[in-house]
Parts: sequence; C-alpha cells; structure tokens
Amino acid sequence: MPHEHTTAAILSVGDEITLGQTLDTNGPWLAQRLRDIGIVPVEHVTVPDNLARHAAALRRLGHEVDLIICTGGLGPTADDLTRQAMAQASDDSLVEDPLALAQVEAFFAARAREMPTINRGQAHRPSRGRTLPNLNGTAPGLHGTIGTAEVFCLPGPPGEMKPMFEHHVLPRLNPPSGRIVRTRVLHCFGIGESDLATRLGNLMDRTRSPLVGTTASGGVVSIRLRYEGPAPAVEAEALLDTCEHEARSLAGEFVFGAGEDRLSAVVLRLLRERGETLACVESCTGGLLEAMITETPGSSAAFVGGLVTYANEAKTELAGVPAAVLEFPGPGAVSAECALEMAAGGMDRLKASHCLAITGIAGPEGAVAATTNRAAKPVGTVFIARTSRAAGPDARRFQFPGDRSSVRSWAAVSALGMLRQHLAGLPLVRVLRQVEP
Amino acid sequence: MPHEHTTAAILSVGDEITLGQTLDTNGPWLAQRLRDIGIVPVEHVTVPDNLARHAAALRRLGHEVDLIICTGGLGPTADDLTRQAMAQASDDSLVEDPLALAQVEAFFAARAREMPTINRGQAHRPSRGRTLPNLNGTAPGLHGTIGTAEVFCLPGPPGEMKPMFEHHVLPRLNPPSGRIVRTRVLHCFGIGESDLATRLGNLMDRTRSPLVGTTASGGVVSIRLRYEGPAPAVEAEALLDTCEHEARSLAGEFVFGAGEDRLSAVVLRLLRERGETLACVESCTGGLLEAMITETPGSSAAFVGGLVTYANEAKTELAGVPAAVLEFPGPGAVSAECALEMAAGGMDRLKASHCLAITGIAGPEGAVAATTNRAAKPVGTVFIARTSRAAGPDARRFQFPGDRSSVRSWAAVSALGMLRQHLAGLPLVRVLRQVEP
Repeated sequence: MPHEHTTAAILSVGDEITLGQTLDTNGPWLAQRLRDIGIVPVEHVTVPDNLARHAAALRRLGHEVDLIICTGGLGPTADDLTRQAMAQASDDSLVEDPLALAQVEAFFAARAREMPTINRGQAHRPSRGRTLPNLNGTAPGLHGTIGTAEVFCLPGPPGEMKPMFEHHVLPRLNPPSGRIVRTRVLHCFGIGESDLATRLGNLMDRTRSPLVGTTASGGVVSIRLRYEGPAPAVEAEALLDTCEHEARSLAGEFVFGAGEDRLSAVVLRLLRERGETLACVESCTGGLLEAMITETPGSSAAFVGGLVTYANEAKTELAGVPAAVLEFPGPGAVSAECALEMAAGGMDRLKASHCLAITGIAGPEGAVAATTNRAAKPVGTVFIARTSRAAGPDARRFQFPGDRSSVRSWAAVSALGMLRQHLAGLPLVRVLRQVEP
Repeated sequence: MPHEHTTAAILSVGDEITLGQTLDTNGPWLAQRLRDIGIVPVEHVTVPDNLARHAAALRRLGHEVDLIICTGGLGPTADDLTRQAMAQASDDSLVEDPLALAQVEAFFAARAREMPTINRGQAHRPSRGRTLPNLNGTAPGLHGTIGTAEVFCLPGPPGEMKPMFEHHVLPRLNPPSGRIVRTRVLHCFGIGESDLATRLGNLMDRTRSPLVGTTASGGVVSIRLRYEGPAPAVEAEALLDTCEHEARSLAGEFVFGAGEDRLSAVVLRLLRERGETLACVESCTGGLLEAMITETPGSSAAFVGGLVTYANEAKTELAGVPAAVLEFPGPGAVSAECALEMAAGGMDRLKASHCLAITGIAGPEGAVAATTNRAAKPVGTVFIARTSRAAGPDARRFQFPGDRSSVRSWAAVSALGMLRQHLAGLPLVRVLRQVEP
C-alpha cells in the first residue's frame, strides 16, 4: 500500500527570503494546492542558504509529517545546497544522474547555447533518490525519503515550480483515502461582512458540512464554501450545489460572481451582452477606475474612454460642469450635483450608453470644515454618480475608510458596483459605506 | 551585561497562513528591521493555531537562536493560543496582569464601548513574563524567555504589530556589539541591470565594503549600498557617503532618486519647483499613468487632468487626432504620429505646460501584421510622446516585455521617465526598451 499523505510541511530555502528581501509566494500556493486535495499543511519553515540548517530542518520534519515539499536551492551556483542537504539528511551520497544530465544539456541545446560547466552539478542526486524533469528551466527536481516523510524538492522560480508540482508531484500524492476536499467561492458587493453573516445565519455554523465562511477585501465580501469529508466526489459536489444555492438565495442580489470573476470583468460582460458602452469621469480617483476597467483584456469592446478632471478647470472645460456648481455658494466640487454634471458631461462627450463619475476627498489633506452654507466633508467623503441614456441618473454619497489608497480603491470598486446593480435591475439597493447625502 | 542578540527566528502563527489563505507580510518586514540593526534572521517558521505545535516550535527555537519574534495568536477568541503556548514552553502558568487589563478596558472606554467578557483573557501573561502595551488594538504583547532566547510576542495585524515593534521591542534589542549595518538605495530609470552593472564596474565586487548590488523591477533599477562591520556609525556613514558619491557619478544621469523616492513623486516635485503643470492622454494604459501620478498626496499642485482615449473616436473627439492619422493609409492609432497628436491635443485642451501621451498594444491580442503600407506591430509595441509649451516635442517607440499588465506598467513608468529626463535637461538619452521607429 502506498504511503498515505495526511500532514505536510513546506520548506522554503533562500537567504533572500529569510532576510526579508523577497516575499515567498510559493509557500501559500503550495498550501492551497495541498488543501485542495485534502492534505493538511501543518508547518512552513524558511531556512537560509546554509547546509547545516537546511539538513537539520529536513531531518526534523522527516519525523513530524508524511510529506515535505521543499522549494529553492536547486540552482547551479555555490549557494544552492538542496542536493547536498537531501543527501546529508538521508545519510546518502550524491551521484550524477545521466538522464538528468541529458535533460540539462538538452535545455541549453534547444536554445543554441553551450552548457556552462557549472550546470553539470544540477544533474546530481542522492544515490537512493530520483530526479524530476524540468521543462521550464535547468534545475531538475528531487524525490526521496527522509525519516517517515516522502520529500519532493522543486526549483524556486514559480514558473518552474508550479508546472513541476502539477506534472510530477501531484500524480504521486496520496491524500488520506476516503477523505476529499472541494471548495467554491461566491463574490458579493454592497454588503458588509457582518450583515452578510446575519443573512447567511446558521449556514455558517461551524458544525455544518460544507463549512461556510466569509472574507472581506476592500468592498468585496466573498463567501467560501468548503466540503471536507468521506463522501465520493459526486456527492460532495451535490452537497456543494445545494449549499451554494442556499447561500446565493440568502445573499440575494449582492452576489455578483463566483470563482475568478472580478467586478470590472462582470460589468464589462453585462455591457457587451447588451451592446452598450461605458465612459468614466474621475476626479479623486485620478484614473484608477479606468485603469481597473482596462486591466481586463478585450475591455475596448464596451469601454470607450474617459476624462480625468482633477483640477476644477478640467471639470468645467472637459466635462462641462457649470461654474455655478463649483463656485461658492454652489455645492462645490465634492458634491452629488458635481458628480451628476461630470457623469452627464462624460456620457455626452464620449457618446456612451452609461457614464460613471467620481469626486471626493481621498486625503490625507483636503477635508472641508462645516460653514454656514456648506456641511463638513471629512477625508473619505466621495460622491459617485451614474448616468445612462435609457434610464434616470443615480448619485450617492459615501464615507470610505482608511488612507488615500484605500479611499481611492473603495471608490473605484463602489462605482463599478453601482453600475452592476443598475445593469442587474437593482438600482435602489443601498450599499456598504453609503451615507445620507 | 545584557543578553546579546546575534541570531533571530521569526515565528508566525495562524491557520490562515499555514493554509495559504493569507500571505504573511509581517515576517519579511521583521526580517528587514532586524537586519537593519545587525541581527541576522536565520529561520522563519509558521505554525497553525495549534497549542502543541506552537509550544514545540517555541521550545525548539529557544535552544537555537538568541531572539524569537512571534506574531499572531493574541486575539480574544478560542483559537488564539500564543499566551498558552508561551506558558507551556516556559513551564509557567498564566496570571491576569492588572495593568494590561486596565489598558484593554481603556481601549474600549475610549471608543464608548463596553468590554466584552471574552477580551478579559487578553490581559493574561505567563507569571514570569510581562506584557507590552498596544495603543492600536486590544491585544497586549508579551515579553519573556524560553531556553536561551529572549521572546517577544506581537499581535498579527500589521497596524498593531509594527508600532509595538518600534516602541517596545526595538529599544530592548541588543545587536552584537562592534557590528553595525547601514544601507542606502539609489533609483535609476532608463538603463538595464546589466548595463548598470558594467558602469558600476568593480564597485560591485563581492569583497568590497560597503557591498553594492542592484535589483530591477519594471523599468526602475535600484542600486543598494550596504555597510556591515565593526566601524563606528560615523565612519560607516562616511564610507557610505563616498560609495554613494562614486555610484552616483558612475550611474550618472540615470539616477532619479534615493530611498523612498518614487518616479511619479520626483516628476511632480520637479514640475512644482518650476511652477509648471502636466496633463496626460492615455490609450493602451487606460488611466494607469494618471492613477500612478495621483497616488501621490498633493499631486493636484501640478497635475491638472487628462483624457483616456481608448476608442479611436475618443482620440478624435477628445484629443483632436486627425482622422487622416488614424485611418488607412495613415500611420494608424499605434504610431508616433498619433502619440504626438494625442499629446498636442491634451496639452491644448487641458492648458497644461506639458503633456504625456501613450498609445500601443498591451495584448494579449491586437498585434498588427506587416502589410505593404504598414510595418508589423507585435504585442508590447508602445509609442510615447511628450509635448511641452516651452520646448519641442519628443516621441519614442518602445518594445515592452511580458503580459498585458507588465506592458502597461512599463509604459506608464517610461512616460514618467521621459518627462523626468526632459525636466532634468537630458532629452536625448536613449532609454531601456526603446527601439528604432
């Protein structure tokens, strides 16, 4: 019977990580991939390019877990010590692997380059271990055993590590039999985490299966569904179907997507389906909303362009905001009136079906004190307006939290959320951080 | 004599980290702060919210290093186990700390909220340890000893962890006497990493002190200077002064800033010093350049606004690009001519001193094959133009690497770099990724 992998440790190797110069993204990625198939990562360890510390970590973990995935230290230079550490921790010696050597040589040959002598060392492996082929770089992986743990050593660059994990590690893993893990995620806009939890009610009980949890990030709250147990895959998926259906009906109109869906891509898709177009007019976000929209490949099918009306003169000259709105005793540049004029002007100038406009105080300075004629506007005050050719306009006031960067990204996401509500036929739903005018 | 801290371990606690749901940024931050003062972090460990694993990690590290900084697990709920782990690993028991309790109560009182019973547990500490005050949250820190190591436990949220480290940990640290670490960093635009290394020559020898290295990130290459040794601080700074002076003269006109300087902030400062203003007209970057510029607080002093002319109609309607440029047999939307027309139109419409315009193919689709009348334009082809009221225009062709997001950010940074060159009186310096028209 093959070795069963119930618990795993992830070992990252490299001075640049222990010294804090590089953020290790391999560890979290591997942890998620292991969880996906039901293996629980119980420890991450990062050690420097130091043979003694590296071998000691392998030895210790070899007696504590069933599986070790090690990344880094497989390069050709003197500070790449994973091969030696594997040999030392398994009381073995290194031998040259002819097949691995041929693969390293082929990598250079395919690029019409001669293999530097230094790369020959990459074909070494502990005598009782084996190598794993690398189609995306020169470093072969390693596979062996230390203590009671099966060990896989993968190269550090994510572009080499990930395909090697998928093709050569995953098929060899053996999660606890009779136990599978399946996850789903739904994304909501316009509702806070605690209000969403109230709606979900006892669906979030910690004793239920699938387990339902929420996480919030800058205006978007995600509902995570997770089945972990003995059911066959088909049954697990059926349980998740039922659970997702319940979650969707409880979260209702706030759900805008699932899985990898992003709010800007969902809005662009809705617009394309209707054959409609979008323009934007931005003041305090200064281009951020439009940058978010145009991140999506193919956004030009619905997004026509926009205006960044940062100075008041630009609001008047480009978007046609009347001076009477901007100047005292008018409501000023940070007002629903100004946002509506910006949106109307943008829709007109860019001949778009819809226009979103944002004006506000991103901070850290710019807060406006109350005067006889105008109410106070603290940092985080933002007005967002939507205009549409085929429907009446919508303008809302928000009070966003955090620093300049937080206020700007909340504002851009909330503008997209307002348009998504409109396109989904929900124009009157009050959303998170919205305040009375 | 106080305990000397030569080596350190960083211990991060939390299921969300071992399961790969959250990227731990506390570890790298702490590693850098420790290195800054000459303490070498030799291991990072992450354990789940599990008392046995947490206590075992503390016990083991307590015999391997001089200093342990632990983050997380100090919240009020049942899965916050750092207090218990500290007690268990030091064979101690928990007691309530009256001063810490008063501080937790004061935190709630200051917010006009009653302290929930559950938070009372946060005032517990091992009987031989002490607590560290938290001015930004409810979780007091802990300070104690395990084995031969001094241990500091800090809350997980960075907004609480960082100030507690600065105010209550840093003053208690005792780096190896007679050994200090000082660093500087210079930022360059327009030159590649290997060309910069050639210019720096033997200043980059690995045997020199201060040690000089380079790192590249999306168009900006930084030169890092690092002194580590026995010299008194004054001498170390003098050595760094000399080294920085040498590096600056070798890197020459490519150096645009130092330390925390960002290219957009440097450009805004140069404009403000001259009393000049900037507008932008963006096509393939879709607002990203303007979003970068307006990230800087106070950018409104020089940045007036801009146009996002994503569709060809927007280029004509908003920026006044002649149809003859856009339509066959004209050079088309991705051309130096179009970029120059966009910049001229933007400078005019926004009444700015300077205008930057970007048009290109960000991908993944949109590459243009060669025809009889037009040359091929692969993904990554970008034209950037600068116009200025008081000087002639400048238009350049670039071939940027990577995916859509990479091409867009290279383009925005390069536009800022072109303007910075002009403002610094270096209009003719050819920059990285620039190609013949």
